[in-house]
Amino acid sequence: MSSSYGENIRLTIFGQSHSPAIGMTLEGIPAGERIDLETLQRFLRRRAPGQSDYTTPRKEADESEFLSGLVDGITCGAPLAAIIRNTDTRSADYAAFAAVPRPGHADYTAQVKYGGAQDRSGGGHFSGRMTAPLCVAGGICLQLLAAEGIRVISRIAAIGSVHDTGELKASTADKPFPTVDDGRGEAMRAEIADARAEGDSVGGVIECAVLGLPAGLGDPMFDGMENRIAAAAFAIPAVKGIEFGSGFASAALRGSENNDPFIVENGTVKTETNHCGGILGGITNGMPLTFRVAIKPTPSIAGEQRSVNLETLKAEKLRVTGRHDPCIVPRAVPCVEAAAAIAVYDALLGHKREKK
Amino acid sequence: MSSSYGENIRLTIFGQSHSPAIGMTLEGIPAGERIDLETLQRFLRRRAPGQSDYTTPRKEADESEFLSGLVDGITCGAPLAAIIRNTDTRSADYAAFAAVPRPGHADYTAQVKYGGAQDRSGGGHFSGRMTAPLCVAGGICLQLLAAEGIRVISRIAAIGSVHDTGELKASTADKPFPTVDDGRGEAMRAEIADARAEGDSVGGVIECAVLGLPAGLGDPMFDGMENRIAAAAFAIPAVKGIEFGSGFASAALRGSENNDPFIVENGTVKTETNHCGGILGGITNGMPLTFRVAIKPTPSIAGEQRSVNLETLKAEKLRVTGRHDPCIVPRAVPCVEAAAAIAVYDALLGHKREKK
Amino acid sequence: MSSSYGENIRLTIFGQSHSPAIGMTLEGIPAGERIDLETLQRFLRRRAPGQSDYTTPRKEADESEFLSGLVDGITCGAPLAAIIRNTDTRSADYAAFAAVPRPGHADYTAQVKYGGAQDRSGGGHFSGRMTAPLCVAGGICLQLLAAEGIRVISRIAAIGSVHDTGELKASTADKPFPTVDDGRGEAMRAEIADARAEGDSVGGVIECAVLGLPAGLGDPMFDGMENRIAAAAFAIPAVKGIEFGSGFASAALRGSENNDPFIVENGTVKTETNHCGGILGGITNGMPLTFRVAIKPTPSIAGEQRSVNLETLKAEKLRVTGRHDPCIVPRAVPCVEAAAAIAVYDALLGHKREKK
Amino acid sequence: MSSSYGENIRLTIFGQSHSPAIGMTLEGIPAGERIDLETLQRFLRRRAPGQSDYTTPRKEADESEFLSGLVDGITCGAPLAAIIRNTDTRSADYAAFAAVPRPGHADYTAQVKYGGAQDRSGGGHFSGRMTAPLCVAGGICLQLLAAEGIRVISRIAAIGSVHDTGELKASTADKPFPTVDDGRGEAMRAEIADARAEGDSVGGVIECAVLGLPAGLGDPMFDGMENRIAAAAFAIPAVKGIEFGSGFASAALRGSENNDPFIVENGTVKTETNHCGGILGGITNGMPLTFRVAIKPTPSIAGEQRSVNLETLKAEKLRVTGRHDPCIVPRAVPCVEAAAAIAVYDALLGHKREKK
Repeated sequence: MSSSYGENIRLTIFGQSHSPAIGMTLEGIPAGERIDLETLQRFLRRRAPGQSDYTTPRKEADESEFLSGLVDGITCGAPLAAIIRNTDTRSADYAAFAAVPRPGHADYTAQVKYGGAQDRSGGGHFSGRMTAPLCVAGGICLQLLAAEGIRVISRIAAIGSVHDTGELKASTADKPFPTVDDGRGEAMRAEIADARAEGDSVGGVIECAVLGLPAGLGDPMFDGMENRIAAAAFAIPAVKGIEFGSGFASAALRGSENNDPFIVENGTVKTETNHCGGILGGITNGMPLTFRVAIKPTPSIAGEQRSVNLETLKAEKLRVTGRHDPCIVPRAVPCVEAAAAIAVYDALLGHKREKK
Repeated sequence: MSSSYGENIRLTIFGQSHSPAIGMTLEGIPAGERIDLETLQRFLRRRAPGQSDYTTPRKEADESEFLSGLVDGITCGAPLAAIIRNTDTRSADYAAFAAVPRPGHADYTAQVKYGGAQDRSGGGHFSGRMTAPLCVAGGICLQLLAAEGIRVISRIAAIGSVHDTGELKASTADKPFPTVDDGRGEAMRAEIADARAEGDSVGGVIECAVLGLPAGLGDPMFDGMENRIAAAAFAIPAVKGIEFGSGFASAALRGSENNDPFIVENGTVKTETNHCGGILGGITNGMPLTFRVAIKPTPSIAGEQRSVNLETLKAEKLRVTGRHDPCIVPRAVPCVEAAAAIAVYDALLGHKREKK
Repeated sequence: MSSSYGENIRLTIFGQSHSPAIGMTLEGIPAGERIDLETLQRFLRRRAPGQSDYTTPRKEADESEFLSGLVDGITCGAPLAAIIRNTDTRSADYAAFAAVPRPGHADYTAQVKYGGAQDRSGGGHFSGRMTAPLCVAGGICLQLLAAEGIRVISRIAAIGSVHDTGELKASTADKPFPTVDDGRGEAMRAEIADARAEGDSVGGVIECAVLGLPAGLGDPMFDGMENRIAAAAFAIPAVKGIEFGSGFASAALRGSENNDPFIVENGTVKTETNHCGGILGGITNGMPLTFRVAIKPTPSIAGEQRSVNLETLKAEKLRVTGRHDPCIVPRAVPCVEAAAAIAVYDALLGHKREKK
Repeated sequence: MSSSYGENIRLTIFGQSHSPAIGMTLEGIPAGERIDLETLQRFLRRRAPGQSDYTTPRKEADESEFLSGLVDGITCGAPLAAIIRNTDTRSADYAAFAAVPRPGHADYTAQVKYGGAQDRSGGGHFSGRMTAPLCVAGGICLQLLAAEGIRVISRIAAIGSVHDTGELKASTADKPFPTVDDGRGEAMRAEIADARAEGDSVGGVIECAVLGLPAGLGDPMFDGMENRIAAAAFAIPAVKGIEFGSGFASAALRGSENNDPFIVENGTVKTETNHCGGILGGITNGMPLTFRVAIKPTPSIAGEQRSVNLETLKAEKLRVTGRHDPCIVPRAVPCVEAAAAIAVYDALLGHKREKK
């Protein structure tokens, strides 16, 4: 299958970059929940293109239209369905990739999998544009989580070789370019500008934290919070790695350093440090759930690249024109929050089922 | 839910560290497949404790008994079920953890989730022992993959601060302590011995590669190979991070460096480099599928640790006695291969469904 | 959850009777399949209201718009999404049912389940109108089955006390009012006319057969063809019973009568009789797969009915105005075919996966 | 797939008639639930063979051994696993069916599906014996339902042409041969004795009711109570039909007769009649949930039958020796209750998730 997620909710994402519309269906949201469409739209705008000088100039209003499941802004218990019309499409840009796959893109694998029937235009269902309906679903879950006092925040931890410093806080997440250290944020933007100037692109790292989570969410083994969040986060096309808490750094630690001592604070059990990222045995322990994802550099670059003509099996040079972000990390920030919110909200519903 | 995995196969793992038995059921394996039980047992022995001086002295024969699904070593189409009896259990070791949770373990989160009913003994269902049935299922899938020319190999890429060098090859994977550079392997073993001598533990990184995969496995978005493998790999208790191909390193690269140019070799489309880890758009491209997982240091350490008495909510010191590995990375190697094999075999069955 | 179906495909149906649109998403259809939209539209028209004197005069063009998954009439491998706009809605008709639930309808249970947030208008997600997207999915599956030589046919076996005679054949299914015996069909129409004249409604039985099926589809126990088809057929609101082959009649037979002797015909194994409805052990045996569903009389009737005011808990009389079919059996015929086609096509894809 | 069931619980059944053991795993049962093993064993004994003169003389203690998930009779939150050893097996009885499939059995379809690898012995995974682990799971769910005041009762509504009269009550269900009218029960037993004397078999109908259910269980469309219970009940090998409430009889009624008027009784909304079987729109309405299943006559009969040699494709006569029930209806009664309990308990857990 492909494009469904969830155990207690069921999210399906549909659409191709240049199909009449893209959208999502979302089942399992309880009836009676208020969804504020303006708040949702504001969230979608953080992902939308055309917001700044480091994003593609492709213009999409990205207005989501709800077809079902909402009555006067309140969920009625029936599946939610929302679509976003594709308006500004330029299929001709992609005609050339039919025979010569773009390096770093899904052109080749889609050709192997779907043959001539694949929708090459704009990357089809593999387009980063599919993260718009992901953000619709995620934006809904963010509101539902907020109603329970749970907040998802994130920052840009790195762009290329520039790393942010300090610790992620809620105030960081509110910035338009969310870094703790604004100087580093400046340097990151310079890195993006450099990449663009060179017709190149650059990747980065996003750090995300879920605050206010109760202990007890998630399950052992295959349905741990790590499994659930990873399964959602890798739906974002450019994500190539994920780590929880200290992640890969913990591999270099001793147990005596990495174990988080339990303490009591205001009558609540906490841990002094949070190397485990708020997850023990797959289950939340009440501390912030923290993770980081690696975002690869945008594969669409202006420079000449080497590829192969799939019909002749001869080497060919290729140059990707069209409109592309030199760095998708800033626009990926809300996508990561969306993926986290979807996974966490799904686990939260499961948690409710267990209560007597 | 908790302990089920798979789209085209369905794996369920059951058992607790000190229950009468642990085991697995595995549905969806086609009829007529030969499973060699000696090969399987050999694979299980790689994970079993008591193999060397850096593993727990707990002795378990870990002989798997097949209860169903196999007739004379051939799958009959019915669900496979196999169990491993727990023989050498010492529940008394764990009585003390009832009220004072061990840092880094699931004691606390299990208590929150299951209350007094949780099976604390030996970590219950959260025990690393649950990876034995994971390896039964994985060992079966490894054989089924091998029959199609697909091999899963891995190496220890790091223990603590010691990193292996060179490139993972099939010959590496055959070593008892699988590193490319045997000198580095020696240094890693010394690191483990040091940790043990200090009553401490140490983590590490495992690199895994799947060779011989056809292009076209996996699906876009939520069912990409990254999502599938991550969802399986995080079932291994100590895994805290996963990255595919260049992973977190690719975040620091330019697109022009990270994109893998397509080439033709012996009439087959390949890529010159493999930064993408053999996965584009969630789908295999025919190159080796490569990934690395971060293993945290074993939380069970001999030294005194700070915790909290959950009944009195007072701080308490705690010392974990019992039998524990100072480093579980060597025994985790076959578990990572098992997780990869399960995920890849599941995707392979899905791929067969798509063929006309 | 609610509105998803399938193991190898994944169908989600969304919408409410009076929401902006209703629709479906359908994942898992292989790429490269041709869907003829005119054929699909013709199939949908068989279910659409306003076709004859025994259906509701509510007019809906029921034109389905494909938003994704189809490129020039060919599936591209991405999820299919199609919507039907709701145009002719009269919510005011339903305002009265807010407090006083209609007998035989889901008003009361929806109120218990969703509280005041339920979308009462037109029955919301419980409306028979939801069978339109079911027919979109079913119509697609019917075309995919037809391409493999598989045909789904059906007839009206009974309306009220009038029963058809003879045996269901492909030629029967082509009739506008599909009965073997046209005289009985006449009598059935009279029965419907009588019910309408009395402000009442009437139920019936639909018989369905799937022809051209290979042997080997379906699985033992929970995924047998009976389970799969039943799980799909009960999605049609008025279905209250299902039986396969001789069904309830076989309960009165001796084994020597009910067992179908195997024979060989033109080199193919067949059975002489077909009491088992083409299914043995949950798996197709190559004979026609036959089943019958019971359709209850439309609960919306003109006559006065006794109900209860949910706010005052006092008895109240109620009269259902609005536009309603005195008998939905004729319009349910394509819905039953759709449900069968979806279940059978899903099983067929699973069967392909098993082949070497 | 085959042998898994459930949305909020996950049941997997494994084993073959003559494999070392049969069993089940059951995930999703909350921690802290008491399972009384003696009560469970008593329930299993109702299904076990050798209880009376109308069942097979095959003796199986059918003692279930719990391998995991239970600690001192209390669920610990980990998956439950229980097995029943197969002790009294006589594979030689089945050797003859290898080439000549028994009419009415799954021999032929299993051969088509699994080829020579199928486990023919005793019917393999298709054996009625697989209902023993179904009853283990069902017996657990029955206890969990009982703890919430929900009871599942049933009666034999018909054997062959003899029909019970009167209305199913709890007191009926307690009888060893559960009919309302004991004279009819006597006549049914005579019908079974006749069938046996003639080397033949006979079928019947079982009626089941779930009492004490809250309103609000189940979901619209594919996850209605009808869909859920049907999907579970057809796992019992001989079930060929199911109807809810008035079922097929309602097809002959007028809407004015079939609609159940709402009334208030002791401050609770009820319906005066229960033609809908306690289900409206797929959701329970608080009235008894009632359904009936058709059980076909046991296909194993002593008389000579016509079949086909699958190797030579020549007609052959066949005589089924071995040990068989002339009527499995009495032993199917607890199986139907088990299927109902599993489906209802699964829906009940889903219902809990929805509550705020």
